[in-house]
Amino acid sequence: MSLRINSETPNFTAQTTQGKINFHEWLGDSWAVLFSHRKALSPVCTTEIGALAKMKAEFERRNTKLIGLSVDTSENYAKWAGDIEETQGTAVSFPMICDTDLQVAKLYDMLPADAPDATIRTLYLIGPDKKIKAMMAYPTTSGRNFNEILRLLDSCQLSAKHSVATPANWSPGEDVIIPPAVNDEQAKQKFPQGWKTVKPYLRIVKLAK
Amino acid sequence: MSLRINSETPNFTAQTTQGKINFHEWLGDSWAVLFSHRKALSPVCTTEIGALAKMKAEFERRNTKLIGLSVDTSENYAKWAGDIEETQGTAVSFPMICDTDLQVAKLYDMLPADAPDATIRTLYLIGPDKKIKAMMAYPTTSGRNFNEILRLLDSCQLSAKHSVATPANWSPGEDVIIPPAVNDEQAKQKFPQGWKTVKPYLRIVKLAK
Repeated sequence: MSLRINSETPNFTAQTTQGKINFHEWLGDSWAVLFSHRKALSPVCTTEIGALAKMKAEFERRNTKLIGLSVDTSENYAKWAGDIEETQGTAVSFPMICDTDLQVAKLYDMLPADAPDATIRTLYLIGPDKKIKAMMAYPTTSGRNFNEILRLLDSCQLSAKHSVATPANWSPGEDVIIPPAVNDEQAKQKFPQGWKTVKPYLRIVKLAK
Repeated sequence: MSLRINSETPNFTAQTTQGKINFHEWLGDSWAVLFSHRKALSPVCTTEIGALAKMKAEFERRNTKLIGLSVDTSENYAKWAGDIEETQGTAVSFPMICDTDLQVAKLYDMLPADAPDATIRTLYLIGPDKKIKAMMAYPTTSGRNFNEILRLLDSCQLSAKHSVATPANWSPGEDVIIPPAVNDEQAKQKFPQGWKTVKPYLRIVKLAK
């Protein structure tokens, strides 16, 4: 049974570069990004870990923890850490799961169809309720766009806080949508600033700053 | 068994807004984006279909077909088409699968964990070999960023054409990576312009225009 949007995240214990963790305890009340990459000492992964490490403060401002995963041992990660710092200009301060037996990779369906011994670029956005909010899998050859992950996280957090939805190609600060689950009476309470009814089912609102 | 990166896409026949199709025949030798949305006459979906319809020429330039899917009948889609044109300023000229019995949605794992009778925002990027290159699932409340889909498509097509990989947060035109599968001898043939060896496993190349 594969994981889906709104699935409970399966719990696990695992060795990481920062010691052993119980995943659900580690999550606590935070949002989180759990992502697999391919391998230590590989090129695209080096740029990905560097990019994420540089953006860590952006995730922290959003109460969101980062945790990586690959089949590597903590020794491999230790060898790699210096290269990341040297070539990407940043140290890595979030944990990486050392999933040497692929236990977590199998639990979270992070393996490609044709190479069952190495994870690909799978990513789960997890809410404070420990449920899956969004997920994606990119091929080995395509580094992820972590600005899109931040945009998606902003959308999910805005939705959780204000009961709104965000339109296609939305950027933070732009107008949002009042979803059908919120009727006009409820909308009057939530959005006293008013909204624009483009169609009965398409109501656009500018959120107060 | 769930679909993964590099899985063969399962074939199907289905009714669409442009007649009955055999999926693999419809794909032909093209790349394709197969995406589910929630429902006709719903707000975020209206903005998504409008955004994609406006970007259709960008996908066509990349030999990439678009096809949508939801549980709606073609009558529902016909009712909706006028609203999309009126509110988003564009007609929709790609087909939408009328997956009234959720046959395709189940085959492509497009249902959320908690509402097995309505698709969420699942998207598959499919190569001309009919295999899955990338996939993602977004929640109902987050409209997708189709610029990211174009970026990812550019990365996959560049990789297929030039045996390169693209780093984190890459944009078209920026430097790319020579993956470990290409050794230095082979790289000399492919990239006579030379490359920069940052680490033995991290070689950066500027593609000739």
